[in-house]
Amino acid sequence: MEENTRKAYFISNGTAITVETLGHSLLAQFPDLHFKTKTIPFVDTVEKAKMVSQEVERDSSEENSLPIVISTMASPELKTIISQCKALVLDPFSDFLPRLEKTLGMSSSHQSGHRIANPSLYESRIDAIDFSLIHDDGGKTRNYNESDIILIGVSRTGKTPSCLYLALQFGLKAANYPITEEDMESDRLPEPIRPFKNRLYGLTTDANRLVNIRQERRANSRYASLEQCRFELSAAEEMYYKNNIKFLNTTTISVEEIAARIVEDTGLHRMEQTS
Amino acid sequence: MEENTRKAYFISNGTAITVETLGHSLLAQFPDLHFKTKTIPFVDTVEKAKMVSQEVERDSSEENSLPIVISTMASPELKTIISQCKALVLDPFSDFLPRLEKTLGMSSSHQSGHRIANPSLYESRIDAIDFSLIHDDGGKTRNYNESDIILIGVSRTGKTPSCLYLALQFGLKAANYPITEEDMESDRLPEPIRPFKNRLYGLTTDANRLVNIRQERRANSRYASLEQCRFELSAAEEMYYKNNIKFLNTTTISVEEIAARIVEDTGLHRMEQTS
Repeated sequence: MEENTRKAYFISNGTAITVETLGHSLLAQFPDLHFKTKTIPFVDTVEKAKMVSQEVERDSSEENSLPIVISTMASPELKTIISQCKALVLDPFSDFLPRLEKTLGMSSSHQSGHRIANPSLYESRIDAIDFSLIHDDGGKTRNYNESDIILIGVSRTGKTPSCLYLALQFGLKAANYPITEEDMESDRLPEPIRPFKNRLYGLTTDANRLVNIRQERRANSRYASLEQCRFELSAAEEMYYKNNIKFLNTTTISVEEIAARIVEDTGLHRMEQTS
Repeated sequence: MEENTRKAYFISNGTAITVETLGHSLLAQFPDLHFKTKTIPFVDTVEKAKMVSQEVERDSSEENSLPIVISTMASPELKTIISQCKALVLDPFSDFLPRLEKTLGMSSSHQSGHRIANPSLYESRIDAIDFSLIHDDGGKTRNYNESDIILIGVSRTGKTPSCLYLALQFGLKAANYPITEEDMESDRLPEPIRPFKNRLYGLTTDANRLVNIRQERRANSRYASLEQCRFELSAAEEMYYKNNIKFLNTTTISVEEIAARIVEDTGLHRMEQTS
């Protein structure tokens, strides 16, 4: 491996989604290093835990530097095997569960889980996804009154992934409506979204970034030209200002952050995740 | 609040997605308690941190039990304010960053972040979402050769949310094809998916659960009858067995786990997240 590259493992007896998310957050605190990460989910037997431990061991002896292991193991037996890896082993369950048990006055279950805790919550999330798909890209505008939020913006500003993330992560019914050149000709809000002004949320981005994204789709087209991107973005932003529509510049932020900022800005309720 | 209900806060100077995910995993270890959770993202100034601290304080004095605070604060100043809350405060950054700094031999940046670490990775994730949308529900079958995976199953077995999650979380191009009654008449695989046998992955579910889900959509229809659900599910499972297609029963598992299991079963590569 190159210099400044370190090996990191994300290990769990479940999906490893929690530990992967936490692991990336922690490693992002060391921007000068490059991490070669490996996620190992469903380590749910002694045999699998021992195999993982041996893999880390091999790695440890091949490299000059200690590997990083971030793990969430609910079972004490498996946790012990992983904690004895020749690595820096960080496990939030080890550190936090004893403190939670003490404060809450009861033992933890030691069960791994990303099971459906609440079926009705699960259904509402699926409903939100269905809604977002049907109401993607202005596809159907009739049921906007059922939406929690309607994202608006010119083509390729991140409306669709943001809506899907809002539905998947937060269970919100998020529609999106693309602002077209035709919509820009009028001083008024486009007709389909006019009655729902208080549910609108605008997305914008920097013109150069939009050019890059549109070039990927239709290289050397008018659609992807700097002039056209600039024109559309400034017309959309003017629409947001005129109508007091909150909006966000998505140039450097991830889908996760776009969704989280929208929820924060609008005061929408974050649905509990299944856990 | 009812007995056995505890208040829990998930606090972050960023999106709070990491701490929310970790928090739900930790609290799920206490299935006999009910937690009233509140997520507070973007606590990125001293003023906001103090306001949050006061909110927890008020709560603490109203309840007989100490609230739980799970937080990821990158800035030491803000971390100190939150850590002095009158609550059980658990912060993986506090516990783990010093140990990482020691092992890695450098200081952490103390920056919060869910920024786009790698733009090309980001683009490939957006491409995957686009692909999954276009190839949802057998919509377009021409570009199946570009897919990483094709989920198959009868109506309402979780294909669409699973594909979207595979695209959003793992950057995989996941198409899905619905198995219809017509497809069940032949002994061979449906023609559009026949050339891609090694990319197929089947979903199934329990008949009673499928009845419930379908009733929501078309109450008292043949489509939602127990007999029809049983028939379709057993025909689909027979198709999986006959063609050696791996499959998963999604009855009790969340979208996250379905996606993680599919990636694990197929050996597909989990894309690094933005972090």
